[in-house]
Amino acid sequence: MDERTLITTYFARPQDRRADVILGIGDDAALLRPEPGFDLVVATDSIAEGTHFPAGIAAAAVGHRCLAVNLSDVAAMSAEPRWFSLALSLPNADPAWVGGFATGLFSLADRHGVVLIGGDTVRGPLGATVTVLGRVKAERAVRRTGARPGDGIWVTGNPGDAVAGRLLLAEGTEGSDAAALRQRFLYPEPRVQEGRALAGIASAMLDVSDGLADDLGKLLAASGVGAELDAEQLPLSPELRRLRGSEAVECALTGGDDYELCFTLSPADEAHLREVSAQWPAGVARIGTVVPGSGARWRLRGQPLAVPDTTYRHF
Amino acid sequence: MDERTLITTYFARPQDRRADVILGIGDDAALLRPEPGFDLVVATDSIAEGTHFPAGIAAAAVGHRCLAVNLSDVAAMSAEPRWFSLALSLPNADPAWVGGFATGLFSLADRHGVVLIGGDTVRGPLGATVTVLGRVKAERAVRRTGARPGDGIWVTGNPGDAVAGRLLLAEGTEGSDAAALRQRFLYPEPRVQEGRALAGIASAMLDVSDGLADDLGKLLAASGVGAELDAEQLPLSPELRRLRGSEAVECALTGGDDYELCFTLSPADEAHLREVSAQWPAGVARIGTVVPGSGARWRLRGQPLAVPDTTYRHF
Repeated sequence: MDERTLITTYFARPQDRRADVILGIGDDAALLRPEPGFDLVVATDSIAEGTHFPAGIAAAAVGHRCLAVNLSDVAAMSAEPRWFSLALSLPNADPAWVGGFATGLFSLADRHGVVLIGGDTVRGPLGATVTVLGRVKAERAVRRTGARPGDGIWVTGNPGDAVAGRLLLAEGTEGSDAAALRQRFLYPEPRVQEGRALAGIASAMLDVSDGLADDLGKLLAASGVGAELDAEQLPLSPELRRLRGSEAVECALTGGDDYELCFTLSPADEAHLREVSAQWPAGVARIGTVVPGSGARWRLRGQPLAVPDTTYRHF
Repeated sequence: MDERTLITTYFARPQDRRADVILGIGDDAALLRPEPGFDLVVATDSIAEGTHFPAGIAAAAVGHRCLAVNLSDVAAMSAEPRWFSLALSLPNADPAWVGGFATGLFSLADRHGVVLIGGDTVRGPLGATVTVLGRVKAERAVRRTGARPGDGIWVTGNPGDAVAGRLLLAEGTEGSDAAALRQRFLYPEPRVQEGRALAGIASAMLDVSDGLADDLGKLLAASGVGAELDAEQLPLSPELRRLRGSEAVECALTGGDDYELCFTLSPADEAHLREVSAQWPAGVARIGTVVPGSGARWRLRGQPLAVPDTTYRHF
């Protein structure tokens, strides 16, 4: 059973309706409206050793990751993250490890001004569940459902770097290119600034965690549209091109763990995007166009490009 | 290292201040104030097989428990629970088990009008982390810190039943008394109605998860007061008295998993309490008085009663 089947079969109930739940299960985060004019964004993501990160990586990288993946979800709703809770599962309470974890966690938290408000600790296999709460003005959150034919399709940063970094970490490859890619895997940078700047501009958005092609497919399906994409426009990093050569495109399309933002935008807003994105350290690139219909058609140097189905099966 | 040391050493940071965080780490739940006049209550609790519940209990009881322990935390702040997220760790996706889990989860959720708004699933040892969000009027949440000398000390329901039920479950004892106590362990009833009714009445409150004596000790320490208590006033259930005899008092004082509310109240509010509590199915009993100083002094039939230190060590 894949995760989506499990959720839709057992947990997503059409009868679950409250007037103050604007958006429930199925997007990057939920949208609640405790009071008129004010929306609360809630994201919960877990990471587990062996599944979401390899055993033996630095404790600081684990602390960074468990918060980063949730900040990325809040960013993908174009909301401001404010608070988080942490449920930490530890096989033992090794002070050096916990200290390193906390350093990585709070270093990222402090950069984004979010504070830890509570949580729980249990003894068990190494893993963490974080819930981030954020705030966004009513009607400004960007969902997955708003893409319209003619919109451009954009992605931040350099997709593919993280999966390459993960492979290079396992292979023990040396050198500055490998070190840069490893860093992108170990310390993914949630695009909080970028996501917030896209409030009211992007027509649809999500964060790339399972791979760009797979996640874009979710956005297209949620919006009821198709897409035409040009793999030559993918913003591949020089490091990825040098170390992965002809595999670089596949890394960018099917590798996970990027935590970049993929969004759609009306052509009328492109000038505005170029203005606000001038200060984004990671950059942004247009990779295609939304069309009527369904599904994504990728091309490379004019030829159709088959993208392997790499949807992650949780169970 | 105990959990408290781990939290205070690595995670509770005095410099973590935001004006919209009214109360952070250290109570049953956090209090946030996204907008003036409106407080948000956030509780996160994890349960893991083997630690918080024995292997092999009904899936519905696991689904019930992971939500109940968090609703109990929200109740202990006298807040109205509204929404929850769920991070579920499963060794495999057995449909019968997940279906039973969902039945137990939503049966409790529906009774309290709370809705699932998102979450995550991971493959791993059986366990669940729930975050419940609730709402309370500004300045009405009841914390642990407000107990004053002269206040009465009260507890809802029948403390001790749950630990007795857990023991009887392990022993396989038959009979209707044993079945009733097992039910109290397997399906603890969070005192949501009772907690909300105590908003603006109770001077301090928490929920009893680690054992009445231990948890009351936390309330007294947080309030900077002591207490004199009479174990003969403990509201022991007939089933507990019949099956555990002279151990019943010890079960009530040191057994965990009760999820009853323990609170303090000015004598001036006792008439009001008797009025609002007339409809509480579980009842409420006065077991002692807050005094100046520190620590709890228990007596039984006029003699000092030593309560074993059973503080749960997580690591």
